[in-house]
Order: sequence, then structure tokens, then C-alpha cells
Amino acid sequence: MSIKAGIINVTGYAGMELARILRSHSGVELIAVTGRSAAGEQLDEYLPHLDRMGLPIVEQDELDDVDVAFSALPHKASAEACVAMLGKNARVVDIAADFRLHNVEEYETWYQPHPAPSFLEEAVYGLPELHRDQIKEARLIANPGCYPTGALLGLAPLVKEKLIEPNVIVDSKSGVSGAGRSLSQTVHFSEANENVSAYGLSGHRHLPEITQELHEIDPSQKWAVTFTPHLIPMTRGILSTIYVTPVDGRLPASPEGAQRLRDLYEDYYAAEPFVRVTKTPPQTKQTSGSNMTQVYPVMDQRTGRIIIVTALDNLVKGAAGQAIQNMNLMFGAPETEGLEEFALFP
Amino acid sequence: MSIKAGIINVTGYAGMELARILRSHSGVELIAVTGRSAAGEQLDEYLPHLDRMGLPIVEQDELDDVDVAFSALPHKASAEACVAMLGKNARVVDIAADFRLHNVEEYETWYQPHPAPSFLEEAVYGLPELHRDQIKEARLIANPGCYPTGALLGLAPLVKEKLIEPNVIVDSKSGVSGAGRSLSQTVHFSEANENVSAYGLSGHRHLPEITQELHEIDPSQKWAVTFTPHLIPMTRGILSTIYVTPVDGRLPASPEGAQRLRDLYEDYYAAEPFVRVTKTPPQTKQTSGSNMTQVYPVMDQRTGRIIIVTALDNLVKGAAGQAIQNMNLMFGAPETEGLEEFALFP
Amino acid sequence: MSIKAGIINVTGYAGMELARILRSHSGVELIAVTGRSAAGEQLDEYLPHLDRMGLPIVEQDELDDVDVAFSALPHKASAEACVAMLGKNARVVDIAADFRLHNVEEYETWYQPHPAPSFLEEAVYGLPELHRDQIKEARLIANPGCYPTGALLGLAPLVKEKLIEPNVIVDSKSGVSGAGRSLSQTVHFSEANENVSAYGLSGHRHLPEITQELHEIDPSQKWAVTFTPHLIPMTRGILSTIYVTPVDGRLPASPEGAQRLRDLYEDYYAAEPFVRVTKTPPQTKQTSGSNMTQVYPVMDQRTGRIIIVTALDNLVKGAAGQAIQNMNLMFGAPETEGLEEFALFP
Amino acid sequence: MSIKAGIINVTGYAGMELARILRSHSGVELIAVTGRSAAGEQLDEYLPHLDRMGLPIVEQDELDDVDVAFSALPHKASAEACVAMLGKNARVVDIAADFRLHNVEEYETWYQPHPAPSFLEEAVYGLPELHRDQIKEARLIANPGCYPTGALLGLAPLVKEKLIEPNVIVDSKSGVSGAGRSLSQTVHFSEANENVSAYGLSGHRHLPEITQELHEIDPSQKWAVTFTPHLIPMTRGILSTIYVTPVDGRLPASPEGAQRLRDLYEDYYAAEPFVRVTKTPPQTKQTSGSNMTQVYPVMDQRTGRIIIVTALDNLVKGAAGQAIQNMNLMFGAPETEGLEEFALFP
Repeated sequence: MSIKAGIINVTGYAGMELARILRSHSGVELIAVTGRSAAGEQLDEYLPHLDRMGLPIVEQDELDDVDVAFSALPHKASAEACVAMLGKNARVVDIAADFRLHNVEEYETWYQPHPAPSFLEEAVYGLPELHRDQIKEARLIANPGCYPTGALLGLAPLVKEKLIEPNVIVDSKSGVSGAGRSLSQTVHFSEANENVSAYGLSGHRHLPEITQELHEIDPSQKWAVTFTPHLIPMTRGILSTIYVTPVDGRLPASPEGAQRLRDLYEDYYAAEPFVRVTKTPPQTKQTSGSNMTQVYPVMDQRTGRIIIVTALDNLVKGAAGQAIQNMNLMFGAPETEGLEEFALFP
Repeated sequence: MSIKAGIINVTGYAGMELARILRSHSGVELIAVTGRSAAGEQLDEYLPHLDRMGLPIVEQDELDDVDVAFSALPHKASAEACVAMLGKNARVVDIAADFRLHNVEEYETWYQPHPAPSFLEEAVYGLPELHRDQIKEARLIANPGCYPTGALLGLAPLVKEKLIEPNVIVDSKSGVSGAGRSLSQTVHFSEANENVSAYGLSGHRHLPEITQELHEIDPSQKWAVTFTPHLIPMTRGILSTIYVTPVDGRLPASPEGAQRLRDLYEDYYAAEPFVRVTKTPPQTKQTSGSNMTQVYPVMDQRTGRIIIVTALDNLVKGAAGQAIQNMNLMFGAPETEGLEEFALFP
Repeated sequence: MSIKAGIINVTGYAGMELARILRSHSGVELIAVTGRSAAGEQLDEYLPHLDRMGLPIVEQDELDDVDVAFSALPHKASAEACVAMLGKNARVVDIAADFRLHNVEEYETWYQPHPAPSFLEEAVYGLPELHRDQIKEARLIANPGCYPTGALLGLAPLVKEKLIEPNVIVDSKSGVSGAGRSLSQTVHFSEANENVSAYGLSGHRHLPEITQELHEIDPSQKWAVTFTPHLIPMTRGILSTIYVTPVDGRLPASPEGAQRLRDLYEDYYAAEPFVRVTKTPPQTKQTSGSNMTQVYPVMDQRTGRIIIVTALDNLVKGAAGQAIQNMNLMFGAPETEGLEEFALFP
Repeated sequence: MSIKAGIINVTGYAGMELARILRSHSGVELIAVTGRSAAGEQLDEYLPHLDRMGLPIVEQDELDDVDVAFSALPHKASAEACVAMLGKNARVVDIAADFRLHNVEEYETWYQPHPAPSFLEEAVYGLPELHRDQIKEARLIANPGCYPTGALLGLAPLVKEKLIEPNVIVDSKSGVSGAGRSLSQTVHFSEANENVSAYGLSGHRHLPEITQELHEIDPSQKWAVTFTPHLIPMTRGILSTIYVTPVDGRLPASPEGAQRLRDLYEDYYAAEPFVRVTKTPPQTKQTSGSNMTQVYPVMDQRTGRIIIVTALDNLVKGAAGQAIQNMNLMFGAPETEGLEEFALFP
């Protein structure tokens, strides 16, 4: 089998990461890449780390005859590109946010008028650990946000088992590449270096995504999520520290409770290729460049609260790697194909 | 007035920072510095950034005739050194943890048998914003931990006014210098760089300090604090993100509540020279090298929770700067003397 | 004495560093600051690290009644501002490049048509270690570039004594703040971090400055300088590694030659307050935030070449600190006033 | 074909990098790994980034029945381990320095008494671009140092064609992982971060390696090399800036000379899979995690000097990747097998 793939907007960080990973995928042929400002250039001259990847960067409307298109455009533009590719009979993985929220009003509260609301119903939220079966059948995948991936993988086992109060705090620390390749004072090296700050304190766009999916897992609760992202001085990686309160005596503030908590996570993720319940607290560097998510649940026995720490690479499991995992599922390829590389450590 | 000062263990990060700051203090003469492995060397050869600070590094027992001694030794050794200096009629600021916890059992739970429990009663917890009057009269100051300083300055206004539930989450992000100058794999550049992780998940020694002081402010509550420190790839700075829940209608989840919250903080800290309630979210880099703490309270109007973000330099307001602020108070010097430098930005 | 000072373009890195340092200068009153995009804002709100520096940022033409104006504008605009201030009877320190090159053709080869060539003759190249006497009398100072400062302080003793061939290689490593506050892909955190590269390989604008001043010291030689700047992943600091060849037997490739070399430097800089000949190889971090330059000459006894390594903070001795050192000289203040702070280490 | 491989000292940076890369090598089965302090632990628990690499870490003398052994021990210990493995009929790639210098006196000048001098004659210096044919036949490979790899690949074309004077300056900038995993103040995050310094100024052990190989290429010259390594605040990567002087009119200081220079390099490296002559100045980040070396020759037309800039990942082409490239050659596998991954960028 050889899947013909195209990347829309290869010049952003998610786009170039797709190109990097697809090169080691034995079942995919990358036949075309697009990029607005760089159209006309050779991919390996524009991005020298993609050595001898001899593809010309073309305009978006020149992307034809692909089995799958990955869109790494900004939202809104991405929805338009995705719809165009569906019209060309491609299956589509949208790395932008346009098809993640099922509710169009919710989307329009956080973004802008939706450019293609009629496609919201068929789009599948592409977190394989929650929606694997639907992904296999999907024509249009909404690839999850980087923060929601870490938050949801940390919360899913407890939510599924109805073990926690619906009050959740997610405190996330992200590397700067999560802000994309666009320029701003915030990502200026001299100001991001040796600095840490919280942002999005009045509400971050990844919040409704987290809430929606918690509600999908357990609609009986009214989920009240506080989500605080932080920018820290590194390029890749997201660490999320999640605080929840158990509901009843099943997870008591005791060594027994702590063990049950750990068993729950190990069982829940036993068969997942890209989630590992670690024995030591997660380190983002141990996931850098890989599609792995590290998950570490711990009982705060003094207060009875549960803390779950998760780590992943925001550009891989948080973007390009997860997109390829979704593609594998859509096309019946082995789910781990192209994604077996280890993290670069140190 | 000229206060004769000595620094015990000048070769650690807090010790060398004391030397740096004291140089610009017009009312202090630094007459002696000690350092175990470096005894016999000249300070400015051992630490070339302290240019032309022509002091020999001496053994600890050679430290005599000082009005004030700062101890920057590790705990236990520090208590012993402090007691020795008190015996020489010096007033003492202990930057280590030995005299911070009033309760000896609590201390021994987190550390080791206390080397000088009889001094616990007279020691004053040196957070000027909480205990200014006692500090002025003290002979022995327990300089607060770096994390508790940021946590307590973020919480004090709400606790004082009894506005929050006694359930508190403090999620702190610290630069690597907080771990001191000792070597370990954790602080190896190649492993700390491009990495973030949580630590102390089974309990960090700064937790009982936070709890003790919350109880000092409002003993009517049983404070349940979850404190999670994180190591992030920068040298200086601590950002603490604090999550609490208001108790009643005085701080509703509304624009009015948000405004009242902000007014509370601005009023509470109006006269404090080293706490600033900022208009934009704090950045640790804006405090680097200075004694300032930035505090930013915000209402999460979707959930009704309150988030307070604080930023400071762990080696200045979190250690050496606060020690000098305490010394100023103890000796009747202007509180800000020697501490008026701005942060180094960028 | 109180010198009334103004800063033109306080919002760039050199401008804000001037404001920071001037605050601790007992003989200067900073009465006005200008900034194009930020005019109308309060300085301490626009730049929160300048806490309680309660100055409004004004338009450039509102800057009046100052004894000295510092221009931290980009070149060309800076020349125009400097001339305007001279017309208002201020003395001027230009941190930009417009008055550094005496020869207008040379300037126009590297920059653009000179906006005020008639002022070139009176402008003094403000490197105090070379031109102290002229600086004292100057009305208009051309503050040296950051790279030339490190290169010239490393070379001056050998050139002065005519001890080297006129073939010089300067390999410099600079922190990212040297590129200023403007945005570009090069200074994007995600691409500057964990990266090092050479730039300006076809010629950097600081090269003619180095060559001009070597010729000033020894006009009998035709200086052939190769200068290669590199961008490294840190905010502040320049380390320059300089390679030269001795001319004759006075500095032989032997321990004696090595000692003579070291003696030469120690003698030459014995009285300089801001140059220190170090006993260990320089570290930029040991100069961070201070006006110090570290200089370390060493004989490569295998080849007979001499290597000189220099370190400084590009924003202090390489820009704002040196400008204030120049101001002190111009106004008869103690040369070190306001500049005695130690480096921030670690 | 399946080559059975073992790694000696998997717990250092070169050792763990070998394990990472070998995982994606289709023709190798990693059957055993050794590590002194970690013996008895599972590899993937000791190094969580090597997820599900379920090998026990064993003692060195338990390493048997391998076709190839990679030694990533420190020098001296490494020679002993290599000899032991040769005695077990394994072919050996020594990543340490013990067999790099052909001359035992030279080795003993820089290191210590040689533990196995009788093997020096048969050992092959494993830089495939210089010694490919010998490597294919070798039983014992001395894998080159990280600095010499970048220096020699930058110099080889000019030396081979006898186009330069035998006076060479190599100014190298290395990430901190080059110093290995051992602890020291130099690699403490708080002191390596935001810092750059030169080291080895009285002579670095990689210097004789560079000189030896230049002499191998052109023994008619007496090579006088000055080599200055620098430590910069990043984990991986070496950038070397090399300064040489052309000998005659074949490379004149003109656009024609510049073009001839470039043509020379492009021709010389046209067939090399892991050397790329780039169109823009090299960036270490463009090689991070990959086996690629970027080479960029440029004519300084003002002085007639030639500058060559090279970039590589010190742990891959500078250590583990080159070792695997050597193994491929020794066993007749495709030279690029296992080494085709792109760099991780950003």
C-alpha cells in the first residue's frame, strides 16, 4: 500500500514536522507540499534540515490527486482548504481548530464566523485514545489541540470511571514552538529566554475543547474547567499538571488509594501504543521528537486531591505525529507506522 | 551608621548574591566572608564577577565582631552557625530553613532532629509584609523559603479578609538556581535544558512553611494546601500560579467581583515597596536581579475560581534580597536601602 | 551637580538599559524619555521592570532642556535626532553607528547616504580606553559598537606596542539581544534556541570600525581584519576570540613569551576601571549587567600565535554602560559613577 | 542480514544515542547493553525515553556473542573493553579516543600510558569521508572525536588539493553534551546557561587528532593548527569556523575565486551521503539528531582569507551516528541504513 499524501502549509512548524515524520513512513508517498510565501522554492532549500527532500513548494490550488491532505494552515483558512480537498475526494486531517468544536455557536464565541459549518457534524475529533473507531471511518479529522491532548489523556481514566468531582484545574507549561512560527515580542528570544509567564488568563481557545471532550466521556456532569497555559523558555514540549478531587471512598487518601489510582491508569492505557504510565515524574525532554505521552497519576495524601502530570511533544503527539496516527487509522495502516522513533535525549 | 556584616558560606548562590547586593548598600560594611572549600582564597579570584571585592575567604570560626551575620549554609549546619554567631552577640539572618517552622515536631518530620530547638521560640519568620514589627525587634530571623514567599504574598490579602475556602493549590515554576550550587543529574545543563518536570510530588519541604503562615494569618481555618514545584529551564525566577475558591458573595464571578478582587490587592499592597500589583500578567524576567514581587489576581469568571499569579527572583526576594530587607528593618535602616536596583531586562 | 538627561528611543534594548542604569547614578536626573510607538504611555507601565519610574514617554520633538541626550535610535534616524539635540545645546551620546566612521565614503559603503556628514569631524569615537582626553572635551560622542569594543580592548596593547602582524582574525559570539528588539525569524525563540550560526560572512558593519581604530593606534600598518560574528542562544554577552601573530622575538613561543604577554596586558590596563585582565578564561556571565570587560591573553606555544579572549555585556559596556561612562567623562563626574554594580551571577 | 550488536556503557550520552539510532536500523539486533552503575536495571526504566526497549543492563563481562561491540566508555577503560571484545571475535567501534592517534608517544603526551599499544597499528581512524576503504576491512575502528569530524570535513578539500598554507585556525562552538554526562560546575545549568567561554586554551586533546589527519592527507606540509573550543548554552551541536590562507593564484580574492572555492567543495562532496555543501550559512539546529554535516566555504574577499563553517550534531555525526556509519561499512550494509532521519527542527 502506498498512500499519496499532501501537506498544506509545509512552512509552519506543524507542516515541516509532518514532512519530517512522513519521510520515515514506509506506506506513504509525499507527493506535494504547499506554502504561501515560499511557493516556487525547493523544500530542501527553504528548509535545509529536510535534506534532499526534493519537492517543489507549490500553491495550494495545485494540490491534486492525493489520498490524504494534511492542513497545517491557521484556522479559518484551514477550513476552506479542507473543504476544497474533500471536494477533490481526498481524506483530510485538519491540524487547525476549525472542526474540533461540534457546536458552531461555541466555535464562533472563541474564533470567528465558521467558514464551513455544514462539515462540523461529520468531522471526528482525532484523539485515537478516545475515538479510535470513529477515526477509522472518518473522511475529515479534526486533529486535537496540543494542550487538550495532554489534558484529556491525563483525565480520561478518572472521568470514564466517574471517580472525580467535575471541578478540574489544568496548569500547563508549554515550549515556545506552540505559539507557531509567526513573529511577536512574546516569542522574541531575548524576551522569552530566562522568563516564564501565564497567558490566556481570561480564557484560552483550548478550554472549550477540553470541556467538550470531558462531556463526551461523561455527559452526566457539568464540567467546570480552569485552564492556565504558561510559556516557558524551551522550544518543544508541554507538561500539564492537573488537579482534581475524588468523589467518594473508592480513591481514599491512603497508600491503598494511591495504588488503586495507579492501577486504574496502568490498566486503562495498557494497550495504548502512545501513552505510557511512568514510574517517575514525566519529563518533556523524554518525549521530544516522539509521539509518546507520559502520564503520571499521584495521590496527594495530605489533602486527598489527585494530581496527574502529563508530558508530550506539542509538535508531535500535540500536532503532526497525532495527525499521522490518525491517518494510519483512517487507511488501515499499522497505527504506529512512521511513529516509532524514540525521543531525542538529551 | 555603618553596620558591620559577615556572610557565612559566600560560595553558594545565596551567599554570593548577598555579597553582590551588599556592595551597593551605603550603610553596610562587609567585613568578612566564609566558605568551606574556598577558605584561603580571595573572594574576587574565586568569584570573578565580584570584581575587586578584595576580601579573603575565611573559615567559619574566624567570623567575629560583626553586627549582623547572614548564614547561607545548608540547613542543620546553618542552625549551628547561627547559634554560634548569636553567642558572639551578632544579630542573625538565617537563609536556611532551620528556624522557619515554629513547631519542632513539624520541623523534624520534614528535616532531621533539630540542632537548636530552644531558639525556635524567639526566631521571627522574616517575611516583612506579614511580620514587619516583629522583625524590627528580632535577634534571629528565619528568612522565608523562595516558594513560600511567592505563595504567601499571593494569598495574604484573601486570607486576611477571610474571603476564600481553606483549599489552596499552589503550582510553582522555578529556575534551576533554586536547587543551589550542588551538582546532580537534575541540574546538569544537558538534562535540565529543554525540559520541564514536576518534583516533590510526595511533599516538598516548603509546604509546611506555607501552611504555618496561612494559619498565622487566619487560625480559624484548617488549611489544606497542595503545592507542586516544577523545574524549568532558566536560571532565576519563580512564577507561582495559585488557585482558590471564594467563600461567599463578596467576590462573585462577574466583572464586579473581578474589580473588587483587584481593588483588594491594590489596597493591601499600596504601601509595600517590594510588592507590585501589575496590570499585565507577571513575567519573572521583569524581576530578575531585583527585590520586587509582581502579583496579579484574576477572576476566572467561567468557574468562579480565583487565580493569583506571582513572580519574583528566587535569589533576591526569595533569598538574599529579602535577607537584606530584614536586616534593614532590624537595624532601623531605610527598608529599601541597597535594594533599589531594577531588574535586568532583557 | 545634577546632569539633566534625556533618552531618545527608550523602548529599544539600549534605551531601556540606559534608564535602568541612570536610576542608580547619583549625579543625573532623567527628565524625559521618548519612544515612537509608545508615546503617551507611562514608562513603568510600558516596561514594568522599570518599577515606579514615573515618566511619561513623549515624542522626540518634545525633548528639551537637557544637558545630555542619549540617542538609541537606529542609524540614520539617530543622526537626525542627534543634530537636532545639538541644536538645542545638549551634548549628545549617539549609541547608533552614524558618527563612528570618520570617512564619509566608508560610512556610505556600509550604510546609506550620511544624513549629517558635516558633524563627522567633531564627533569623538567614545571608547574611553583609547580616547579619554578627547571624550572629555566632546560635544558629540559616537558610542562604539558592541563587537568593536570587545575586539579593540583585546587588541590595543599589542597594536600600541607594534608587536603583531597586521593580520587579525576576530571570531565573536554574541547573545541575541545584540540584534535589537525588532522581530525576525532569526531571533524567534524557537529557531535561535539550541542553535548557533555565523552571519555577516560577506562583511559586517562593525568591521570598518575595528579597522579604523586599529589604524588610529598604529597608522604605519595596513590592517587586514577578518571579523566573523556568531549568534548564540543566550540573551546578553559577547565573547570575542582574537587570533594574531607576533612580529618578532619580543613575544616568543615560550613560557617567557607567555609571561611577557600577560605582563603587557596587566600593565596596560592597570588603571582602567572597566577592563580586568583575568586569571581564568573569561565568561560572559561574569559580566552580565555590569560595565566590566574581561580580557585574557594567551600564547599558543605550539604555533607561536597569540589568542586574546574578551568578554563583556553587549548592552552595558557594549552600549548603555559605555555611553554613561562617556557622559561621566564629558561632564567631569567620576568615571565609574552609576556603573559600579556587579554582574548578576548566576 | 542481521548484525548482532552490543553497547558498552549505554548510560552515557553516546551510549544512549547508539541505542536510540540502532532501534531504527533494519539490519541490526541490539542484543545486550552494559552500564556500570545501572547494571541490573531495565534499560527503558533507567532511560524512559527508550520506551519499551526491554533490555536488562548487564555487567561488561557478560557481553558475549555479538558481531559488533560499540564502546562508549571513557578513554583507557574503553581500550581495555575493546581488546576484550576483539578477543571474543567481535568487531569493535571505539567511540573513545584510545585508538585514534597512531603514534603512541603522542597519545601518551595527551592522555596516559596506553593500555593496549599493540592494537594501534591495525586500528582505522573511522572518518568514512577520508578512510572508507580501510574501514570496510577493519576489525577495530577508532571513531573520530566530535571536534575533529567538523574540522576535517571542513578542511579536507583544500588540503587534498594543496591549496592552503599549513597554518590553520579552528574556532569551535560546542553544545554542553559534548562534555558528557559526568557532573561538574562547568555543566551546572545555572552556570552554563546564559554563558559562553573558551576552554582548552593550553591545548585540547582533539588537536593532535586534527593535525594527524591533515598530515595523512598531505604529508608534505608541517601543519600548524590552533584549535579553540568554546562551550555555549545549548545541548547538542558543534559549529566550527575555520580560517585558512590560500597558497597561490588558484583561489584569488575575487568573485571568480569565490566560485572556484565553492565548486571545489561541491565536487568533492557530491557523492557523500552525510556531507552537504549548503547555500546558506550552516545552523547546528538543522543537524540536530541527524548524521548530516553542513559545510559552507566562503572567500573573505577583503583579506583573501578563506573561512569554512561546518555544523553537525556532536552526538550523532560526532559520535554515535558516525559509529553506526562505520559499522555499516564494516558489515557491507548500505552506508545510510538507520541514519536517514532528518534533524529535529525547530
